[in-house]
Amino acid sequence: MTIAECVATSNSIHPRLPRGLRDILPEQMLARQHIIDTARRHYELYGFVPLDTPAIEYAEVLAGKSDTHKARFGVTGPEGEALGLRFDHTMPLARVIAQHPELPRPVRRYQVAPVWRADKPGKGRFREFIQFDLDSVGVESEIADTEVMAAICDVLDDLGIRYRVRYSTRLALDRLMVFAGVREEQSHDVFRVIDKLDKIGPEKVRLELLDGYADESGAFISGLHLRPSQVDRIEAFLAIKSPRRAEVIAGLRDLFAQVYGARDVIDGLERVSRNLSALGYGDDKVSIDLSVARGLDYYTGTIFETVALDAEEFGSIFGGGRYDDLLARYGERVPAVGAALGVDRLLSILEHLGRSDGRKSTARVLVANIEPSLESEVMALTWELRRAGIESELYLGTARSVGKQLKYADRCGIPLVALYGSDEKSREVVTLKNMSTGRAPATVTTEREEWLASRFGQFEVRRTDCAAAIARILGRVTPGQATPA
Amino acid sequence: MTIAECVATSNSIHPRLPRGLRDILPEQMLARQHIIDTARRHYELYGFVPLDTPAIEYAEVLAGKSDTHKARFGVTGPEGEALGLRFDHTMPLARVIAQHPELPRPVRRYQVAPVWRADKPGKGRFREFIQFDLDSVGVESEIADTEVMAAICDVLDDLGIRYRVRYSTRLALDRLMVFAGVREEQSHDVFRVIDKLDKIGPEKVRLELLDGYADESGAFISGLHLRPSQVDRIEAFLAIKSPRRAEVIAGLRDLFAQVYGARDVIDGLERVSRNLSALGYGDDKVSIDLSVARGLDYYTGTIFETVALDAEEFGSIFGGGRYDDLLARYGERVPAVGAALGVDRLLSILEHLGRSDGRKSTARVLVANIEPSLESEVMALTWELRRAGIESELYLGTARSVGKQLKYADRCGIPLVALYGSDEKSREVVTLKNMSTGRAPATVTTEREEWLASRFGQFEVRRTDCAAAIARILGRVTPGQATPA
Repeated sequence: MTIAECVATSNSIHPRLPRGLRDILPEQMLARQHIIDTARRHYELYGFVPLDTPAIEYAEVLAGKSDTHKARFGVTGPEGEALGLRFDHTMPLARVIAQHPELPRPVRRYQVAPVWRADKPGKGRFREFIQFDLDSVGVESEIADTEVMAAICDVLDDLGIRYRVRYSTRLALDRLMVFAGVREEQSHDVFRVIDKLDKIGPEKVRLELLDGYADESGAFISGLHLRPSQVDRIEAFLAIKSPRRAEVIAGLRDLFAQVYGARDVIDGLERVSRNLSALGYGDDKVSIDLSVARGLDYYTGTIFETVALDAEEFGSIFGGGRYDDLLARYGERVPAVGAALGVDRLLSILEHLGRSDGRKSTARVLVANIEPSLESEVMALTWELRRAGIESELYLGTARSVGKQLKYADRCGIPLVALYGSDEKSREVVTLKNMSTGRAPATVTTEREEWLASRFGQFEVRRTDCAAAIARILGRVTPGQATPA
Repeated sequence: MTIAECVATSNSIHPRLPRGLRDILPEQMLARQHIIDTARRHYELYGFVPLDTPAIEYAEVLAGKSDTHKARFGVTGPEGEALGLRFDHTMPLARVIAQHPELPRPVRRYQVAPVWRADKPGKGRFREFIQFDLDSVGVESEIADTEVMAAICDVLDDLGIRYRVRYSTRLALDRLMVFAGVREEQSHDVFRVIDKLDKIGPEKVRLELLDGYADESGAFISGLHLRPSQVDRIEAFLAIKSPRRAEVIAGLRDLFAQVYGARDVIDGLERVSRNLSALGYGDDKVSIDLSVARGLDYYTGTIFETVALDAEEFGSIFGGGRYDDLLARYGERVPAVGAALGVDRLLSILEHLGRSDGRKSTARVLVANIEPSLESEVMALTWELRRAGIESELYLGTARSVGKQLKYADRCGIPLVALYGSDEKSREVVTLKNMSTGRAPATVTTEREEWLASRFGQFEVRRTDCAAAIARILGRVTPGQATPA
């Protein structure tokens, strides 16, 4: 179609997105990028390396978790094969490990990219969202489990989020099945019900483990038909709660004193706890929570999730665990532990808490462009600022009035406007307008104080000193520049 | 499917990717990320803001360029609508502008994300690749055109690529049609043939503009049946070549002296050239090349492309132009100029030139993990290094021998291995092994010189001074740390 034909058919085109999809506009995108950059910095400090896989995979590579086939977007390509969009980074990682035996092991990689889920969208639930995964593949050592949890603490501390990492192990749940006399073939159903504890509460969990119940709508939720004595034992397990990891471990030792194989499992939980403590991740950051069950079938050891304490209703923002058998689908058993950070869920939480950094623009200075005869000069000024490392925009829109250009800066959230007109030129100055309603500065200089005092006002700097003055005003003062000649 | 069922069906699962798709492994990914980070830093310095759109769009939103419907991957979602994967960032941007009138204009955004094209894959041609777009929407000013070209010069200078930006304007081609007496309805075909100049050479272009020719395979390429006198005029236009922009402008003024409307067009070309010169982008960086035609129909003014001078055969790495009519498909004419940086093509070029930065790992130190009784202590050492800002990995694989762990560091490209065994512990030292075959250091300190002299050798530092010593060795010396107490 040519552009002329496009225009001709324009009546039939509506600017809209398919259900469950959204644009990320600049303010939100800057906040998202801040989360990603922070996580990337920490994970790279831990020596994780980036890896990328295509969004499109063979359907059979994506298959493998219960129920996920329902939630996949299909893709039709030129060869007519069965393709789909990835819904997580774990199934593609399993393929990469099998397909690239040349990668030195352990493979410790991070991947930050969108995933797609074709399920029902809702408030804060989208069909495309960014997940930031990290995995250590080819590691038996529990230190790898410790490391994944420690790294997320570092990331969330840096982002200024109040959080709690909660961990347990799938092996403790297995011991619980022994303790409660649940048959192995029923254990996954029991885990699934326990996993709903946060959502439906202990009463309904009990009823569902027994003979079922009628919910609010009158629909009957069928039960697993455990005996009351079995459910009592499950409840006794779930009742072991404490903000102190050592107390949970002690309670579990007590309850499982007679359970075959439980000591090894509890020793493992305790080693992870001790490692965390030794590294400075105390009970305030990481707790042991025996109700953590994680819905996915493939976990084989440590399991964990993480909530933002000021927004627990948003659910887990970072979850994962050990999955020693998943890669066996390609023929080789490879021990692995990993987790996914829900970048977009974290973004929703920061927005909910009013805690995004509030930047709507990258530009710190808008250079106004008012007098056509001075366009070359304001252009030169703009590049001078950019070359001094100051993010700057030259106003290039259609408005010529100062008022409209100031309004543009205000709407874009650009804190400073530089005006250079005939009057300024004759006096060899630049007028700076302070658009900011911002916070108190970290570095205070006389010039900066003057600027702050001028809020919504204006003051002048010498044209020749303009870039240096703006750098000082923005608090970008390096030791060597602190006292300009 | 449960994991057990997965394993049971594992014989039928092969770890492979659909045609034209690839994984980006760590070394390549680090190089890609370096390109993206560099471009992002410069574009943010120019005040461009990030924006993201979903990969999936309605097919009608993606439609609009000639022939692109053939190259689209279709997507099947729960609602059964006609969906596709985006093949560029321009059509989604047009939708965003129409759908979000609240965005202050001009909208100057960048977007870095994959695009998908279902055409024939080949060497260096993949079906999914990263494009880094920047566009200024709502700008008439030619400074916006200048800015887009200037910014890519800054990016490529920073990446150390030898390049040439070549620009022209679609309006000059329109004047050429007047000059050569080509009918408007035939002009797009003529542009298409001119656009092939680099690929097929001037002889075949001439023949195709005339009555066609038989190619090497014997197939007949039909011609446009222009008269020889018309083709002479087109060739006279294409013959205006010079490494100096001023000379091309002078040549064009000469050739088009009698062409109606040509003066305004040439004045425009010249203003852009003068702006570029004033800002320091001389003939060595940006040239005027009248053969630049750009295949896409929607350009209306400035058009440009960019080649890497040491790898011209890879084609354009950064191209775009002004497209003042494209957004009219949603009902409002909005002037705009933009460009796309082919991140993955640039990556291929850097690899071809052997110019990727060669980092295969983020970790700068591998802390060996050899004696089980000292595991807690090497773990503590690792976190100590991380907290000092040194990217560090604790070896967590299955090998216990020093030799195998050194080999792992070597394969991963980690330059330094820290050994801390019983012997080191008793002497309160850490042994550092230099794995590097690297380049000469920028900062030379006595310790660093010792380290360099030790290449493939080893030396010791005090355990208490380990993090500071490694920081110095890696050249991460800040003024205050230069002379430790």
